[in-house]
Amino acid sequence: MQRVTVYLDYLCPFAWWGLELAYVVAPQLGLDLVIQHYSLEQGDHPENASLPRNAPTWKLAEQPLEGPRSLRAFLASHAARQQGKAAHLRFALELFRLHHQDKRELNDDQTFVEVVGRAGLDLERFMADLEDEESRRLELARDLEQAGELGVFGTPTFVLPSGDAAYFRFTQLTTEPELALNLWELFAAVLYNGAHIETIKRPRK
Amino acid sequence: MQRVTVYLDYLCPFAWWGLELAYVVAPQLGLDLVIQHYSLEQGDHPENASLPRNAPTWKLAEQPLEGPRSLRAFLASHAARQQGKAAHLRFALELFRLHHQDKRELNDDQTFVEVVGRAGLDLERFMADLEDEESRRLELARDLEQAGELGVFGTPTFVLPSGDAAYFRFTQLTTEPELALNLWELFAAVLYNGAHIETIKRPRK
Repeated sequence: MQRVTVYLDYLCPFAWWGLELAYVVAPQLGLDLVIQHYSLEQGDHPENASLPRNAPTWKLAEQPLEGPRSLRAFLASHAARQQGKAAHLRFALELFRLHHQDKRELNDDQTFVEVVGRAGLDLERFMADLEDEESRRLELARDLEQAGELGVFGTPTFVLPSGDAAYFRFTQLTTEPELALNLWELFAAVLYNGAHIETIKRPRK
Repeated sequence: MQRVTVYLDYLCPFAWWGLELAYVVAPQLGLDLVIQHYSLEQGDHPENASLPRNAPTWKLAEQPLEGPRSLRAFLASHAARQQGKAAHLRFALELFRLHHQDKRELNDDQTFVEVVGRAGLDLERFMADLEDEESRRLELARDLEQAGELGVFGTPTFVLPSGDAAYFRFTQLTTEPELALNLWELFAAVLYNGAHIETIKRPRK
């Protein structure tokens, strides 16, 4: 199995579509899909604006639960991760769908309970892991540090088995397997091309 | 013939490589390659920072000749354009090469004279057209307005026959025809993909 890491933030619809895409192609290509986290609230915070991405002073994992819009969702994601990679992946997909499709509150325990049910996780264990807030905050801090070291600036950012990494934003999601595979292989072909393509980006009017 | 427009700024090495690429593939694909201009000095100017791209207040075409690093090169480019599209293209390529490869001054009449010679243009006509500064400034202003309307933010930006447009940055230029064609077709495939890919961008550490 070849590992693909996806950095995501639950606030971001592009991250949702990117995860859906990777979820469709992973079994077709034998990819081992691993979720890590990047925080838009931390990355775009005014206090961090002029600082290197690996040296922020405003850190999401150190904030009170009540402030940021995404903190509790990230901690819930780390609680789900305790039940294994596959469970984590299902949890992430269902949380994205419930928030962006069904417009449910992101930072809300009732949402998490429903997601845990849909994703087939052990609810009792999930709640216990979520209550161990200090451990979850440490895990989140580590994820965000790794994203900072890599220079991640948005989500989704994928790290391919070769180590090539890129932000990948598209607006028309397809989960039809052949179209999804075509889209993924196009993305990989861009990163593997010998010209070392750094950016392809449409202007916005 | 299918028209491809490339927005370029002579200051930018990525624009140079992009133009070399398009120059190699155009005859293979029957593309009609047209050069327009986008100014990094104008686009990145502090006075324009918070303004829409189509409503700058600091305009390169209205600046004195002595100030900006790129103005005289843009005016020379418009003077070369008076001798036809093919002549303009050869002039642009030779000016890029002389500046970025041979490290010659960009904004310098002696450089232009050498470029005109290398590109096989009529020198007398070129100098007369360059001296008609008011006309060249009006043409430059129009180009930069069109770039602003399109939302161009960097060079090279290509507009494909379909109207799809994107900034395209790569760091390993190849002019080997088959590799170049492969690279170009990959770029076009990204823009034509049904997922409407908006951005692929590597993080920078």
